[in-house]
Amino acid sequence: MNNPIRNIKLVLEYDGGRYHGWQRQSQLKNTVQGRIEYVLKQMTGEEIELHGAGRTDAGVHAWGQVANFLTNSELSREEIKAYLEKYLPDDIALVSLEEMPDRFHSRLNATGKVYVYKIWNGTRKNVFQRYQTYEVLTPLKLDAMRLAATQFIGTKDFKAFTANKSKDKSTVRTVDSITIEKTGESVKIRVAGDGFLHKMVRIIVGTLIQVGTGEIHPAEVKKMMEQEDRATSGFTAPPQGLYLAEVIY
Amino acid sequence: MNNPIRNIKLVLEYDGGRYHGWQRQSQLKNTVQGRIEYVLKQMTGEEIELHGAGRTDAGVHAWGQVANFLTNSELSREEIKAYLEKYLPDDIALVSLEEMPDRFHSRLNATGKVYVYKIWNGTRKNVFQRYQTYEVLTPLKLDAMRLAATQFIGTKDFKAFTANKSKDKSTVRTVDSITIEKTGESVKIRVAGDGFLHKMVRIIVGTLIQVGTGEIHPAEVKKMMEQEDRATSGFTAPPQGLYLAEVIY
Repeated sequence: MNNPIRNIKLVLEYDGGRYHGWQRQSQLKNTVQGRIEYVLKQMTGEEIELHGAGRTDAGVHAWGQVANFLTNSELSREEIKAYLEKYLPDDIALVSLEEMPDRFHSRLNATGKVYVYKIWNGTRKNVFQRYQTYEVLTPLKLDAMRLAATQFIGTKDFKAFTANKSKDKSTVRTVDSITIEKTGESVKIRVAGDGFLHKMVRIIVGTLIQVGTGEIHPAEVKKMMEQEDRATSGFTAPPQGLYLAEVIY
Repeated sequence: MNNPIRNIKLVLEYDGGRYHGWQRQSQLKNTVQGRIEYVLKQMTGEEIELHGAGRTDAGVHAWGQVANFLTNSELSREEIKAYLEKYLPDDIALVSLEEMPDRFHSRLNATGKVYVYKIWNGTRKNVFQRYQTYEVLTPLKLDAMRLAATQFIGTKDFKAFTANKSKDKSTVRTVDSITIEKTGESVKIRVAGDGFLHKMVRIIVGTLIQVGTGEIHPAEVKKMMEQEDRATSGFTAPPQGLYLAEVIY
């Protein structure tokens, strides 16, 4: 492409329910990245590669996914915004749009991410929450969950808390905070850290849910971290409760 | 059926999005009544007719629909509850269950109904609310809407506010109250009355929305009521924002 090249940053909200995750795969798979790139290509007439900060899995949602793309388009910021608002599908919304310096890269420059996991913890199912929360009808013991959560805080090896089986890459990550709050019959688990391994948030949350229902004693979580074996840790909480809430730079 | 016959009252919550409304039609149409009757038939081995208090239209939701059915089943109250919780589809929930005297009829004995209409009135679309609210991205003037709403209060002829074209039946109804409240970017319109004509709540709400966006002056609503002509009143607000909230006895 010719200069002057522009680097556009998008903040995106999406309902991941219909998508095979963020990352573009074959043409046959409906992915968030693929859908947005298609709209950007229609808009600019260029082949656009959209870099997302987080590769959310199939069914996972976002309130604040960040992505950027390079373009030679001469459309104004307002024209790009209006085009995306008009042509993005119903389940993807543009939160904001910003011109960035050339060197900005949404994933490589991210210094942290915040995920929120939503649990419906009522006494009966909630038909309106079924695609946007995970349902646990046993009352969760939040104090036990909060105690267990302290085991994850800090710079640690999360080998037992990832679906990633590669032996080559480091499984050490830093989790800055985990907060657990209940409002009415909704429980929200907020996890902030420098970055997360594949399915790490969902395995941490699944383990905390099992602590909350009494299946796992809080003290066992320390052993799970020490044993570094996926077979010892909790279940993988399903995707419909998970939201990529914020990317930090 | 033989005595002792039992009369069971159900309070139901449902997401109407997948249904062709409450009322059973042909076998080919997926209706809320039809789905629940099928489960009750499986449970009792009897042909069950379920009487609903309100015949919600296609796409309309409920938090507190009331329905009753007669049965000779000897299943306990707890067994019926457990069966329904297990076999009702994901988008229909049992809120409560009660044994009633023979003469109770959910529709004929109802003395009032409360509907709530949910509007997403943010500055941009909300992907998570798209099936459960109606989106209006123009800021609504709530005071103008509240002023217009006073025209509907009382015992009046709602001929201009129904899709029902029959000339034989009375179009006089009593609306007890209309309240309009905003929480964050959500506007809720609550309409309570003794009963409602076909699409009456949605035409009242559509008219109020047009008052809120400035398309209709609040004073025009009085004329609409007087002229008794559907052509003069506002649009029919779409079904996905409407909830049958409560049935009063």
